[in-house]
Formats: sequence, C-alpha cells, structure tokens
Amino acid sequence: MQRHFDEELLKLKTDILSMAALVDEAILVSVEALKNLDESKAKQVIADDRKIDEMELAIEERSLSLLAQQQPMAIDLRFITMAMHIITDLERMADLAVDIAQRVVEISDKPLLKPLIDIPRLAVVAQKMIQDAIQAFLSRDAELARKVIFSDADADQLRNAVQQELINEYMIKDPKAISRAVSLLLIARHLERICDHATNIAEDVIYMVNAEVVKHHPERL
Amino acid sequence: MQRHFDEELLKLKTDILSMAALVDEAILVSVEALKNLDESKAKQVIADDRKIDEMELAIEERSLSLLAQQQPMAIDLRFITMAMHIITDLERMADLAVDIAQRVVEISDKPLLKPLIDIPRLAVVAQKMIQDAIQAFLSRDAELARKVIFSDADADQLRNAVQQELINEYMIKDPKAISRAVSLLLIARHLERICDHATNIAEDVIYMVNAEVVKHHPERL
Repeated sequence: MQRHFDEELLKLKTDILSMAALVDEAILVSVEALKNLDESKAKQVIADDRKIDEMELAIEERSLSLLAQQQPMAIDLRFITMAMHIITDLERMADLAVDIAQRVVEISDKPLLKPLIDIPRLAVVAQKMIQDAIQAFLSRDAELARKVIFSDADADQLRNAVQQELINEYMIKDPKAISRAVSLLLIARHLERICDHATNIAEDVIYMVNAEVVKHHPERL
Repeated sequence: MQRHFDEELLKLKTDILSMAALVDEAILVSVEALKNLDESKAKQVIADDRKIDEMELAIEERSLSLLAQQQPMAIDLRFITMAMHIITDLERMADLAVDIAQRVVEISDKPLLKPLIDIPRLAVVAQKMIQDAIQAFLSRDAELARKVIFSDADADQLRNAVQQELINEYMIKDPKAISRAVSLLLIARHLERICDHATNIAEDVIYMVNAEVVKHHPERL
C-alpha cells in the first residue's frame, strides 16, 4: 500500500513537471510569434492549449482519487493539495500565453511598432520564475521559492517601463500607433500576470514546507 | 462524528457565503469609487483586502483539516475540494477589485474622460455572475451554473465595446486623453477577469454536480 502510494506521488511529480514544460513552451512560442509577427506560430499556441487543459483535468482527477483512496496524512495531504493548486496556476498561465497569441494574431498584419526589448526580457523573467517555482515545489525548497517571490518586483518594474514607453513615446506621438501599442501593452500585462501565478506557486511552496503562512504576510519572508 | 462533520460542512458553506459577500462589496465599492473619482473609497477597498486574504487562509486551513481528520468520501470530498478552488477564485477577484481601486487612485486627480456607461454595466454583470455562481455552488444547481457560463459572453462583448470606444473616440482623437483612457481600458479588463473567475466557479460546480467534465468541453453544456 505504501509502496503503491509512493509510486503514485512520484507519478504526480512527473506529470506536474511535464505540464510545466508545456506551459513554458507555450510562453516561449507565443513570444517568438510576437517577435516575428508569426501568425501561424501564434495559432499553434492557441491550438495546443487543449493538451494543457486535458493534462490539468487528468492530474486533478488522479489527485482526488489519491486523496479519497489513500487518505494521506499531514505532509502528503499538504503536498497533494498544493499539487492541485499548482496545476490551476499552470493552466491559467497557459491561458495567458493564449491571450498573448491572440494579441499577436490581431496585430500580425502590420509591422511591429518598435524593436522589442523589454517584453522579451519580461518573458525571460517569467519563464525563469516558473521553472524555479516548480523546482522549489518538487524539491521542497523554501529558499528557492523566496527567490521567485522577490523576482516578481523585477517583473512589475519591467511591465511598468513597457507601459510608460508605449504611452509616452508611441501613443501620444502617433494616433495611428495607438491600436498596436494597446496590444503590446496588454501583452506586457499578460506576462506580468504569468509572473503573479509563479509567485502564487512559490507562496504555496513556502506554506507547504514551513506550514507557515507567508502568503499575504510579506514581512515573514 | 457524522453530525460534527455535517456541522463543519455547514460552517464551510456559511464562510464561503460571507467571503463572497465581501468580494461582491469590494467590486461594488471599487466601481463606485471610479464613478465618483473618490480616492478615499478606493483606498478603503485596498485596505479591506487584508480581511479577504485572511478569510481565504482560515477557510483553507479548516478545509484541509476536515480532509485530514474526517477522510470524507466521494461527494463530500468533491465538495470540500471545490470549496478550496472557489476561495482561490474569490481571493483573486478581490485582488482584481484592488487593481481597479489602484487605477482609480492613479486617475483621481483629473476629471473623468466621459460619463461611464458600459463599465458600470460590466460591473453589474460581474456581480450577478458571482452571486449566481456561489448560489449554484451552495445549492448544487448545475442549471444556474450554466447560466453563469453563458453570461461570460455578455461580459466579453461589453469589454470589447469599452475598448473600441476608448481607442477610437478618445485616444486617437486626443493624445492628452491617452493615459486616462488606458486606465479605463485596464479597469474594463479587470472586470472581465472577475467574470472569468465566476465562470471558473460555475465550471467547477457543474463538475461537482455531474462529476462530468464540461470544463474545456463547451459542446457538453
């Protein structure tokens, strides 16, 4: 019974890792599609989202049946519950990659407003935050989780820089640029929300590891 | 034991209802603050968010200990798991009300761009969706949950109308209006995201009631 349970937990970890890899890929491809205004790549992200949705449902089903059949205690219970939180965050990150891809489809018929610098940087921050958050979860590493939470400030700052530049350098100076600038501004927001979800995961990890509540209590970090 | 468990379930329901009422209030007050550019009301929403965060944590703690101590089966297990999903959605709705309030603080030093029509309408749709989603959860009413999911299309349409009007009638015509228009555009997005969270709850309710997966399968609605 215990051995079967350990195998099931290991499978749960592997599945979350696979799901995170797909989400990471979706973000990467959506930002590649943006950089090259590549509509077909953007549509690929939109189509592939179904796989991620199905993974979420499959993992949740299995987690629930683990809870019901094995009735795990304390640390394992907490791990499974957190796993269920994490797949919700991962699925919503994938939805945000789809949002980015949809913005790309909207603007792909006109040249890019400007060479992109801060948006790809923001995407790199987001991907690093996701990878670290998942790693922190799998290895129960509260230190790494704290690092993720601190990175969120970089993401906010980059998003803010993108927004200010778009408003002051493009939208105000050229009304014809407004519609495309709004799309870029929303893409920066989508990326920032992806970082927020990575932060949620990191907060959950600290909660799981320390059974200590830092969520909503930044002074305890 | 069973009687104690039933009491605990009832308390869980009551707490979710109280939390939903606070979230509903936060949205109402944030939009009131917008309509009157009332900075102090906006700051009240931001300050009151702490109460909602604490409620989420308290409800989650109790749900976890119910799961651990009572080891409920099938329908009750599903109910408690869904309760934990729902409080996550409610907490994020409250965060979006805070986002709205922050936009209001940003723009409260200048007059409103225009009399607001569609944004308050969108807020009304959002509040109705939340109330119906919670009601559907508490009374296990899949029909009402379906109604919530269908309302999401109205929300998308209203948000789209707001965005098009702001771009075409204000931002393009008057560069000085851009910054304030961006804030309104983001507020409409925040409200649309609130509706998305209500939709998540409704999808969970259908899943709980029917143990049937309609999430990601709109054709089964």
